[in-house]
Amino acid sequence: MAKSYENEHPIKAFGWAARDTFGALSPFNFSRRVTGEKDVQFKVMYCGICHSDLHQLKNEWGNSKYPVVPGHEIVGVVTEVGSKVEKFKVGDKVGVGCLVGSCRECENCSVDLENYCRRPTWTYNSYNSDGTLTFGGYSDIMVCDEHFVVHWPENLSMDAAPLLCAGITTYSPLKYFGLDKPGMHIGVVGLGGLGHMAVKFAKAFGTKVTVISTSASKKQEAIERLGADSFLISRDSEQMQDAVNTLDGIIDTVSAVHPILPLLMLLKSNGKLVMVGAPEKPVELPVFPLLMGRKLVAGSGIGGMKETQEMVDFAAKHNITPDVEIVPMDYVNIALERLLKSDVKYRFVLDIGNTLNKN
Amino acid sequence: MAKSYENEHPIKAFGWAARDTFGALSPFNFSRRVTGEKDVQFKVMYCGICHSDLHQLKNEWGNSKYPVVPGHEIVGVVTEVGSKVEKFKVGDKVGVGCLVGSCRECENCSVDLENYCRRPTWTYNSYNSDGTLTFGGYSDIMVCDEHFVVHWPENLSMDAAPLLCAGITTYSPLKYFGLDKPGMHIGVVGLGGLGHMAVKFAKAFGTKVTVISTSASKKQEAIERLGADSFLISRDSEQMQDAVNTLDGIIDTVSAVHPILPLLMLLKSNGKLVMVGAPEKPVELPVFPLLMGRKLVAGSGIGGMKETQEMVDFAAKHNITPDVEIVPMDYVNIALERLLKSDVKYRFVLDIGNTLNKN
Repeated sequence: MAKSYENEHPIKAFGWAARDTFGALSPFNFSRRVTGEKDVQFKVMYCGICHSDLHQLKNEWGNSKYPVVPGHEIVGVVTEVGSKVEKFKVGDKVGVGCLVGSCRECENCSVDLENYCRRPTWTYNSYNSDGTLTFGGYSDIMVCDEHFVVHWPENLSMDAAPLLCAGITTYSPLKYFGLDKPGMHIGVVGLGGLGHMAVKFAKAFGTKVTVISTSASKKQEAIERLGADSFLISRDSEQMQDAVNTLDGIIDTVSAVHPILPLLMLLKSNGKLVMVGAPEKPVELPVFPLLMGRKLVAGSGIGGMKETQEMVDFAAKHNITPDVEIVPMDYVNIALERLLKSDVKYRFVLDIGNTLNKN
Repeated sequence: MAKSYENEHPIKAFGWAARDTFGALSPFNFSRRVTGEKDVQFKVMYCGICHSDLHQLKNEWGNSKYPVVPGHEIVGVVTEVGSKVEKFKVGDKVGVGCLVGSCRECENCSVDLENYCRRPTWTYNSYNSDGTLTFGGYSDIMVCDEHFVVHWPENLSMDAAPLLCAGITTYSPLKYFGLDKPGMHIGVVGLGGLGHMAVKFAKAFGTKVTVISTSASKKQEAIERLGADSFLISRDSEQMQDAVNTLDGIIDTVSAVHPILPLLMLLKSNGKLVMVGAPEKPVELPVFPLLMGRKLVAGSGIGGMKETQEMVDFAAKHNITPDVEIVPMDYVNIALERLLKSDVKYRFVLDIGNTLNKN
């Protein structure tokens, strides 16, 4: 019998997959590997819907390997552990983010930056070492090397799963680029899944936060709901001019091509513009404004496993959770349509545990 | 009598100036202010010819105020000091770079970053506080607030004047961005006045240095004359591919618009591309390569006065001097033409002390 997704591994699994570039999800029978000696098997309870799921479902990055079972903001409960697993036991609450493997020996892996390993195994749309496709968290069970599993703190709601991508993506650059010092003034560009987490972390670090958005309609919620200190409409040149030279750093979450000169102007000397969205085409970088204030433009992508654990623990301690709309599994295609229109505050989370039914 | 450049101040001065956008220099009588209580007056001995002199002589940056007496790499001997001058005495060797004033009270000035003050007084093509034009070092004497004057070490040749712009412009980012650690691997793009200084400082810091140039003809001199460890021809895609992920940082001295993606690819994770040249138009910045390795693109412009003194002292200690071609004052127009064709290794220095004659 030819190997099928259903029998390529011994453990039956069930999820929802896209079969082609239409990107529509439908029920999908597949299989998971037997729990290896360093593996953790867990029942998926919640999985966030990330904007990159949308890109990959529709092959917008050109690298999709169908069938695609998306999902890389996964929280669940351990059902089995391998003989050499040290950190977890059955019943533990756990989380898995974007990564389920890396080379474990390169210069990045050796300093807890598995996220910058050049041979990563992504949680879905990637290949396991045995050549089989990886399948993500829109599914009933996961099996993952314990190194890529984090402890989910007892007092952190399991539906806060978006911490595992949106959270770490914004926490990590705030820390690495030193934008976490009380009294600093931080800008956050774009108020979606990533942006709203950036606001929450930056506030928790004790910084003053200004949200920068094209949409005046977001002002009230930025300030009243998320606790931002001020709001700039990026299209209002007078407002932008008044704010020149006021920010120590900016987390730019916008993934469409957009002008960055106005953002550079908002920075003080030594200011840092960190892009965490990935515009498909290059942006225009004016060099003179960089030179005149020793400014920089950087990129940052998720975080390493050690830092992801640290972030989750920090979130639990400071009661930081994403604002989520919890939806049942069979709502996923509608949720994806709404996400495309930014019609969500701020992240959809699939209630996998209660609503993923095989029948 | 209407004020003329010759009598707007009490002290007679003589230099060479451009009168219009042709940019040709010719002898020019003007005047300097009386030595104020915090001022140092000095006889100019040497002045480097910087590429930015060329830009400003021809109004290529659109802000030239004629007559332009260029020169911001100036070394001389003190002839008079004001009553409250603390650091200098008559006979001292001194240097003045790009700056002769700043606000002295902003957040940049207060942390020794006068170079990023937003109200700077440039050494030429700028305005003094009394509204008169500043005139640079292609002249017989200078008068300058002691804060903007550095001690020229006894064992440092006075014709090493290009340290004051080309030197500090490359030293400062190597230090600030942490690219001065022994064992690091640093790239230097472009081998002109700035690039050759970057190579020398980076070697003195104990790093491995790779020169990256469009011109294969520079390989031998980069390695044999300047001590670089290796050489990459940026147009050779195979060479560039082999060097992917090898550099901790790059000092990019090229001031023409050029592709930066190939440079970003050379960087390891956390690598830093620092631009010290100022392309007139924006460069294309691909964001995904930044994200995938937490890389950054930064700018840096000269350095503060404290760091400029530190750099000069470091150069003296480590015997680092620019490679210069010393030319007489009346050669200046030819030197500028040759500079335009990059026909100099690597900096022209005017022998003002011996060759600037009024007759």
